[in-house]
Amino acid sequence: MALTFASFQQLIRDRYYATDSARGTAGTFMWLMEEVGELSTALMDNNPPPGKPAPTAAQRANLEEEFADVIAWLATLANINGVDLERALSKYTTAGKVEGVKD
Amino acid sequence: MALTFASFQQLIRDRYYATDSARGTAGTFMWLMEEVGELSTALMDNNPPPGKPAPTAAQRANLEEEFADVIAWLATLANINGVDLERALSKYTTAGKVEGVKD
Repeated sequence: MALTFASFQQLIRDRYYATDSARGTAGTFMWLMEEVGELSTALMDNNPPPGKPAPTAAQRANLEEEFADVIAWLATLANINGVDLERALSKYTTAGKVEGVKD
Repeated sequence: MALTFASFQQLIRDRYYATDSARGTAGTFMWLMEEVGELSTALMDNNPPPGKPAPTAAQRANLEEEFADVIAWLATLANINGVDLERALSKYTTAGKVEGVKD
C-alpha cells in the first residue's frame, strides 16, 4: 500500500514522540541540521565533478537513507509542534494555490 | 484521499522538474537551505520564551507553510537525483529496520 504522509507522521509519533517532545524544538532542530549536513555530503558524493569516479552502490544507498532521515526529523519537528504535514502540503496539492514557485 | 509520498513527489515533478533539473543539485540545495532558515524562524515564532505573547494565527499558518516548502524542495532534490522517497522511507516503515534512533 502506498505510504501516506499521515501514516508516516503517525509512525514517527508512535516511535519517538516522548523522547523528541522532552528534548524540545530547538534541540530537535539541531538533529535535523545534522541530517541536512549528511544529505549535503551524500548529494556531493552522488554528483561527482567531471573526471571523478561515478558514485558507488553504497553511496547511492546512503543518499536514499539521508533523504529518509531528513524527512523523519521533519516529521518529528512537526509532531512536537502540532503541525499536520498533509494539511500543510495542501498549499501545493490544492489546485491554483501555488503557481510557478515554491515559496 | 490521503496524500501519499509518491503522489506528492509526482506533483512536484510535473510542476517543477524542468526548472529544477536545469538549475541542478547545488543550486537547488541552496533553495532548500533558504526554506530551512524560514522554518527555523517560524519555529522560534511559535515557541516564544516565557513572558512573551503566544503565537498569532498568522504565525501558526506560516509554520505550516514552511514545513510544506521544505518538503517540496526535498521532493525536488529527490526528483533530480533519481531518489524515490517512499522507497527511501522503507528504512523506517520496514519493521525492525530502525530501532530507537533516526540515523
